[in-house]
Amino acid sequence: MVQPVDRPASSASSAAAWGGLIETYRRYLPVTAQTPVVTLLEGNTPLIPVPAIAQEIGRGVQVFVKYDGLNPTGSFKDRGMTMAISKAKEAGAEAVICASTGNTSAAAAAYARRGGLRPFVLIPDGYVAVGKLAQALLYGAEVLAIQGNFDRALQIVRDMAEHYPITLVNSVNPYRLEGQKTAAFEIVDVLGTAPDWLCIPVGNAGNITAYWMGFCQYHQEGKCDRLPRMMGFQAAGASPLVSGAPVPHPETLATAIRIGNPASWEKAIAVRDASQGEFNAVTDEEILAAYRLLASREGIFCEPASASSVAGLLKVKDRVPAEATVVCVLTGNGLKDPDTAIKHCENQFKGGIAPELEAVAQAMGF
Amino acid sequence: MVQPVDRPASSASSAAAWGGLIETYRRYLPVTAQTPVVTLLEGNTPLIPVPAIAQEIGRGVQVFVKYDGLNPTGSFKDRGMTMAISKAKEAGAEAVICASTGNTSAAAAAYARRGGLRPFVLIPDGYVAVGKLAQALLYGAEVLAIQGNFDRALQIVRDMAEHYPITLVNSVNPYRLEGQKTAAFEIVDVLGTAPDWLCIPVGNAGNITAYWMGFCQYHQEGKCDRLPRMMGFQAAGASPLVSGAPVPHPETLATAIRIGNPASWEKAIAVRDASQGEFNAVTDEEILAAYRLLASREGIFCEPASASSVAGLLKVKDRVPAEATVVCVLTGNGLKDPDTAIKHCENQFKGGIAPELEAVAQAMGF
Repeated sequence: MVQPVDRPASSASSAAAWGGLIETYRRYLPVTAQTPVVTLLEGNTPLIPVPAIAQEIGRGVQVFVKYDGLNPTGSFKDRGMTMAISKAKEAGAEAVICASTGNTSAAAAAYARRGGLRPFVLIPDGYVAVGKLAQALLYGAEVLAIQGNFDRALQIVRDMAEHYPITLVNSVNPYRLEGQKTAAFEIVDVLGTAPDWLCIPVGNAGNITAYWMGFCQYHQEGKCDRLPRMMGFQAAGASPLVSGAPVPHPETLATAIRIGNPASWEKAIAVRDASQGEFNAVTDEEILAAYRLLASREGIFCEPASASSVAGLLKVKDRVPAEATVVCVLTGNGLKDPDTAIKHCENQFKGGIAPELEAVAQAMGF
Repeated sequence: MVQPVDRPASSASSAAAWGGLIETYRRYLPVTAQTPVVTLLEGNTPLIPVPAIAQEIGRGVQVFVKYDGLNPTGSFKDRGMTMAISKAKEAGAEAVICASTGNTSAAAAAYARRGGLRPFVLIPDGYVAVGKLAQALLYGAEVLAIQGNFDRALQIVRDMAEHYPITLVNSVNPYRLEGQKTAAFEIVDVLGTAPDWLCIPVGNAGNITAYWMGFCQYHQEGKCDRLPRMMGFQAAGASPLVSGAPVPHPETLATAIRIGNPASWEKAIAVRDASQGEFNAVTDEEILAAYRLLASREGIFCEPASASSVAGLLKVKDRVPAEATVVCVLTGNGLKDPDTAIKHCENQFKGGIAPELEAVAQAMGF
């Protein structure tokens, strides 16, 4: 059991300069002094104790969330993108391209424009509302809609990257996982060791792969004396790693993990086996319950997909060892998805109250 | 001139445990060992260099933004609320109340629920759409709409706080400024001294007052050898501190600073005079231009009101001393206001493109 970080013995007594992921962890990353670092000072996100969730488990278990929604563009994608854009710039790219409508396109646009590159987003015609892309557009993304489906868009972005001075920053970009692994470093830096369990949402399976890379690298360097069990959670309607077969039409309200055929399938299986971990599925109802619990008991507002890590932990809570330390990864900020918040907030709204002290006191239950 | 923090000599080589504002700065705050600390590990927000904005000024001026939109609920209000809720809990309150529809109600709800208190929000009937309050509702706020206007709501929350075990967490709560002043501490901790200029949006004028408290306290303690000029910027349609008279019907798209009669009027005037500072007005067009510039050149997405600090700096740029260090405060996350983003993103959307490499390359200008 590690000491809780809400009052750690080693807590800072002042704010320290944080130079972003690449500066902080450059000895663990494929960069050189010549790499032009494009950074928004991403990373260094808080590891927040969640005592109400720990209490539901009991037996002295400590639970923290790694709140990566507090990265500059609102998701963990910034960790990978600072690496991908810095390396693209180093390689002389003039533009970057991805086929994405969510957190990836926002992160790609922000970092590309900061680095002086043009960010392109390729999507199928009629596929997405402007509202979903507003953040990326405001950062300066140029969005191209083709008369074809998502697979065709993916093929074209690959071809573009091959024939023009354009770097592909989709999940196939190898530098993204390098950046993402730093979240594991930060957890170890703050806890003093690795947690017993790491609970993490799994869609494309890149992030679970990246965390494991990070824990293993720190372990080899002697920065932690143990490795966590990697507990991956998928949405029930999009859980190919649980069922063992691709899902042709994945369905879940947790759109960030609505993926039927994960890009990092093989790697994720290897992570599970090496860490004695598991993949489990959680229903949309369980995800929403965790989403509301995090907000209304812990004060933490995350994307629905993020809440699957907490939903999963609560689902298998009886198997958490006594006194264990558990970290749940929250990948995105709840502000990214206002529609779900509006749809699923409890109705605690009372109107038509007389403008008098007594009437208001009565409405409040005093 | 101070060293740029994108590569400071003293940059961290690992993540450090951050215990939140109160733990970190407890010797400067009105708390004791008995105060129950309610924290989401707020604060420690990044101080990001903005080289494109600095270049528009030239003459060796360095510009940073203090990006307080990366606080846990998405705005600087968290700094004040960790103090206000901890002190309310210490005093034995069972509930907190405020009359607010924006960032204050979200922060109050998150911290109150985390601390086990009931958060109430009092608003005029028919005043606000649920969408605007969705974040606070999801955190568990109980919203009461009275048959009366905002002034009546404010009077009732004051009366409630007087007659029941309920703490008022509106801007009149004195602990909020105590918490907010820590942003000035963080700036000095990272830069090594105070900036030459601090540019800050001014609505209710509490935050400019709090920053000045922080700089002065650090100066007295010998933590910095100078004090900044405090440059406050108001929206042109809501600029009572510029004109010298209350504005009966304030109007601006920067809703977070749409205030005609600031609560901290006298204090703000005193800050201006003591710091040889100024109040200036910026138009909505200037605010939007800065909002877009921050996103599309620097990769930083803030609330419209936040952008008034940068708009103001650019307006008076010819008066910035050569080689000066300037910090602009960005008070809120752009994700808080998706409607403005949707309305004001540039139209960089091209549809109907043939699903072929050549057609896409042509659309991209290659």
